[in-house]
Amino acid sequence: MTPAGHRTIPVDPATAVLLTPLPIHDVTLRGFWGERQRLNRDKVIPHCDEWLERAGWVGNLRAAVDGTLATNRVGRLFTDSEIYKIMEAMAWEVAREPSPRFEARLAELSRLLTEAQAADGYLNSFYDYPGGPERYSDLEWGHELYCAGHLIQAAVARLRAGHDDALVAVARAAADHICREFGADGRDGICGHPEIETALVELYRATGERRYLDQASRFVERRGNRTLGDTMYGGRDYYQDDVCIRDAPVLVGHAVRALYLTAGAIDVAVETGDQALLEHLAAQFDRTVERRTYLTGGMGSHHHGESYGEDFELPADRAYAETCAGVASVMVAWRLLLATGEPRYADIIERTLYNIVATAPSDNGDAFHYVNTLHRRSMSVLPDPNHPSLRRTDGMRAAWFTTSCCPTNIARTLASLGGYLATVDGRGLQVHQYVDGEIQATLPDGRGVGISLETAYPLDGMVRLRVTQSDGEPWALSLRVPGWTEKATLRYGATTHQLAPGTATVTEAWQVGDELTLDLGMTPRWVRPDPRIDAVRGCAALERGPLVYCLESADQHEVDLNLVEVDTSAPFAVREPDDLPGSLAIIVSGTVRDEATGGWPYLPSQTGRPARQVKLTYVPYHRWGNRGPSAMRVWTPAVGGP
Amino acid sequence: MTPAGHRTIPVDPATAVLLTPLPIHDVTLRGFWGERQRLNRDKVIPHCDEWLERAGWVGNLRAAVDGTLATNRVGRLFTDSEIYKIMEAMAWEVAREPSPRFEARLAELSRLLTEAQAADGYLNSFYDYPGGPERYSDLEWGHELYCAGHLIQAAVARLRAGHDDALVAVARAAADHICREFGADGRDGICGHPEIETALVELYRATGERRYLDQASRFVERRGNRTLGDTMYGGRDYYQDDVCIRDAPVLVGHAVRALYLTAGAIDVAVETGDQALLEHLAAQFDRTVERRTYLTGGMGSHHHGESYGEDFELPADRAYAETCAGVASVMVAWRLLLATGEPRYADIIERTLYNIVATAPSDNGDAFHYVNTLHRRSMSVLPDPNHPSLRRTDGMRAAWFTTSCCPTNIARTLASLGGYLATVDGRGLQVHQYVDGEIQATLPDGRGVGISLETAYPLDGMVRLRVTQSDGEPWALSLRVPGWTEKATLRYGATTHQLAPGTATVTEAWQVGDELTLDLGMTPRWVRPDPRIDAVRGCAALERGPLVYCLESADQHEVDLNLVEVDTSAPFAVREPDDLPGSLAIIVSGTVRDEATGGWPYLPSQTGRPARQVKLTYVPYHRWGNRGPSAMRVWTPAVGGP
Repeated sequence: MTPAGHRTIPVDPATAVLLTPLPIHDVTLRGFWGERQRLNRDKVIPHCDEWLERAGWVGNLRAAVDGTLATNRVGRLFTDSEIYKIMEAMAWEVAREPSPRFEARLAELSRLLTEAQAADGYLNSFYDYPGGPERYSDLEWGHELYCAGHLIQAAVARLRAGHDDALVAVARAAADHICREFGADGRDGICGHPEIETALVELYRATGERRYLDQASRFVERRGNRTLGDTMYGGRDYYQDDVCIRDAPVLVGHAVRALYLTAGAIDVAVETGDQALLEHLAAQFDRTVERRTYLTGGMGSHHHGESYGEDFELPADRAYAETCAGVASVMVAWRLLLATGEPRYADIIERTLYNIVATAPSDNGDAFHYVNTLHRRSMSVLPDPNHPSLRRTDGMRAAWFTTSCCPTNIARTLASLGGYLATVDGRGLQVHQYVDGEIQATLPDGRGVGISLETAYPLDGMVRLRVTQSDGEPWALSLRVPGWTEKATLRYGATTHQLAPGTATVTEAWQVGDELTLDLGMTPRWVRPDPRIDAVRGCAALERGPLVYCLESADQHEVDLNLVEVDTSAPFAVREPDDLPGSLAIIVSGTVRDEATGGWPYLPSQTGRPARQVKLTYVPYHRWGNRGPSAMRVWTPAVGGP
Repeated sequence: MTPAGHRTIPVDPATAVLLTPLPIHDVTLRGFWGERQRLNRDKVIPHCDEWLERAGWVGNLRAAVDGTLATNRVGRLFTDSEIYKIMEAMAWEVAREPSPRFEARLAELSRLLTEAQAADGYLNSFYDYPGGPERYSDLEWGHELYCAGHLIQAAVARLRAGHDDALVAVARAAADHICREFGADGRDGICGHPEIETALVELYRATGERRYLDQASRFVERRGNRTLGDTMYGGRDYYQDDVCIRDAPVLVGHAVRALYLTAGAIDVAVETGDQALLEHLAAQFDRTVERRTYLTGGMGSHHHGESYGEDFELPADRAYAETCAGVASVMVAWRLLLATGEPRYADIIERTLYNIVATAPSDNGDAFHYVNTLHRRSMSVLPDPNHPSLRRTDGMRAAWFTTSCCPTNIARTLASLGGYLATVDGRGLQVHQYVDGEIQATLPDGRGVGISLETAYPLDGMVRLRVTQSDGEPWALSLRVPGWTEKATLRYGATTHQLAPGTATVTEAWQVGDELTLDLGMTPRWVRPDPRIDAVRGCAALERGPLVYCLESADQHEVDLNLVEVDTSAPFAVREPDDLPGSLAIIVSGTVRDEATGGWPYLPSQTGRPARQVKLTYVPYHRWGNRGPSAMRVWTPAVGGP
């Protein structure tokens, strides 16, 4: 299907790792993620592409070709990167399913890039034109290597789909330029925004050219040497240049920067066989998941600096939890899953996919969350769909942003999502995420194996697996049992097995047509925060399967969400809401207090305010904000124990 | 003592208001505030003045005179304002007690200003020199009128102390320039940072020139017409230009900007007799106190934009609660107290003075909080005392800041503090704050009255009042009974009266030597937050008198403050700590849990972790961070009800 040596896979280690990923066309998605992949192809990518023109960001490249940047440059300094991310998304899409439209657009944009690129390989529409800022004059904020990284990622997607085309040539020239400019004898610099690191390793993987890996390794090792200046946020931890990556115990600073860097450093560790670095990065991420992550998988608890907070500093109302940080967390967790096989990384991927990646785009695919708050106290405000928004800190999705990294990140992630669901190893096939769909895979020894999955997941926890390809010799089918399961079972043959969270592996001489039924259980469950998370003390949140639920004002009648309390000991009711088809609402019991007005909010006693019984309707968090402005909360004060 | 028409008073309405303030030299402070006023004079002001030179900010004025700004301008664009605030502090200080040093420095700086001022009255070292930015080219961020406002405030202090000197001439010329430039026929503009409004009203009060009041009124009425552009924070609410002041229900945006604007608008309302505006501003502030204020009186719960959050969005760990916002809140509350006589405004002044204004400077007077957080989870880091800091968001005081508004604001506030403690009206004398000291006052009908106060307040709640001047005719002595009192009594003659929070007024034909004993009670008390303040649900805070207390790591032995719980039903013990002389520590009972490590912090149950009994030592919040880097919390998870 693709030329020898290229497999259409978003992350494809050249060095043997524990688990080997599958090409995206070996996995067919239907159901929840299939619908979102379709929405991405039909709506999200065209929507973004249209805005790239409308906002003038493609125009910047045309101006670079025409030599009119001095008068015509528009937008922030990293607008090129959004073009690259949409090119990457289109590259995955055409690999998955032909699209003359996307092919034509890729060709058009690739021509433009070829013409805009300097003779020495440098390419960036913000710098290096008469009267404009000099190239590499602002490594702290310039985003030049960041943009180049996304260019390279787009080219890697293209190359892995079998097209060694103009885009690939541009990216290789850019990468070669960077290796010369920032090589062992070049500038002792790094980019304020990591991204080039993982891109260069992936280009090494796709081309076999060792210098790209060496350069990525150089960028990772240089970081923390304080070659960048202090930031307006009070230090260099913002861009992870405060301490060397091998000395940092936990992720700090700007969350997307920290996670992109971690992804690149894992790639370097894997390809250079640096087990100590790999283990350190895994421990860093584990600690971050344990202490600096929202229930939704969201990361980043400071709006100021878009950064991680301290351990357990996780305010629901001021959650930043940038969509891009969700995408980047999936990138990191996937790399760790491949390298370690630990199912906890698939757990955090699942949580982040369903509650950040699925939450960011609107049901219509034409508006996006930048910030994924867990609590909105007052009604949000509908943004103007014809005007790029700032970050929309009020909880509403917007059509486009002045910094529009999130929509394009969603686009490239959904387009390549098939690559993140299953793997193979010498023993057999591992299913990490459950989708209605098909998996066809080739084991390392060349044997073909296949299964189909039939499920309404995550509406339902029942997954019917059927073997669709097998040579009749034994191979292992491994199924992740999510950490959230309470009563999971697996039935095959005449036996039903109880499963504990982790991995369930069945090795059989599978025959085509063999069936297994996995039941993960979908009883709604209340969860409580670690007592060190002060911001949500005394609260409970509702989950069902992989979905985090929330209370949205649209579903409550004459109930102020700021005054409610849920009773976690009362029974649940479940129904499909008319205005949120395809989702299940969960109705619980609670009380609502009268609003007190006392002039001063801190008193010796706050008890004794009258309350009335109410029914409260929870809906999946990823659907919130699709019915106009609303108030919302994930965590709610709770009575009823435990 | 001063020329006719001038009284040395920080806020001196020209129009009759309910309560009339007293000149600062009519109030003598000893004890708690006397010590801080002494520290301010001996340390804080000289420290700031030294930094003004060291940072090159006075040098900017010299460069303006020498015509070398193009090469020599240093610092941010509002550095002039810090010079003016220190001049204001010195002006109050020399009025209070002679100081040849401060007089000489005032004369030197005034000469410099005279020479630096343009012929038309414009004066700002950041603009309007060959090669520099044009004046008024950036009303959003330029701070030109803001700086002019502080120049005028310094001059008003000088004028009210009886010196119609060079500084006053410079300020009047600047004010006249502004009235021409921004008058009815001038630019339809406002400054991105309010401050000019209150300054112009005060200049009107001090000079009787109506045009200053008219211009202040114009600035207030223009605001909200969206003449300023959008901000990087997503709207115009950052600088209160989103809606007209008469339509805003509560304070929003940058807290210092909002409060300075409110102070100026109250001044305008008072002087123009606009009762509707006054009532609206009082309601705005009342709502802000009720819903957007920290226990300490601090305001501003977003680091991003230094702004107010939504109602009840008051995270302890991300409290911004800028020192300047505390100063500005006192300015607003004092104006409302004068206009309405409502003791709740004196309550919020007391709370803010003891827990923000007294907290900001270190015990040595050489370092300052910019941000007044209520919770610091991990150990803070000692800043370099020889290098200006950014805002120090980690809870440590710093010697100086790149934006150093807070130290100079503390300086001018402490220097003029005597003006904020007592008032007179037609009936007699009102004491709003309790200090060891003397009050000498002239009633509106010319009668002289005086009292002395003998107290260790706030160490002790007993205040002995003795009449020191009286003509033997009846006059009313009014004493504020703070809102926090639980069992206050007043004894005079043979009778002891129980007092409820509010105002206790005793009208007698007072004789010199008459004594009253006020006992406000100083039992430590636990307070609980309004249940809508999600960030501190289930927590209690300890107060004693006007002081908020905190747990600081320095006082706990082998106890992680992130894992403690206090028992609010257990008895208190009180002691004076060796390392915090002059303060009382309060010892309570609690438990500390074992640290759990589970990989994922959200679980169906968080109960059952082992805990051991501990003693926890609370110290006054205003003393924290004086013993080196530490962790700290004001709100602590609590058991024991209510």
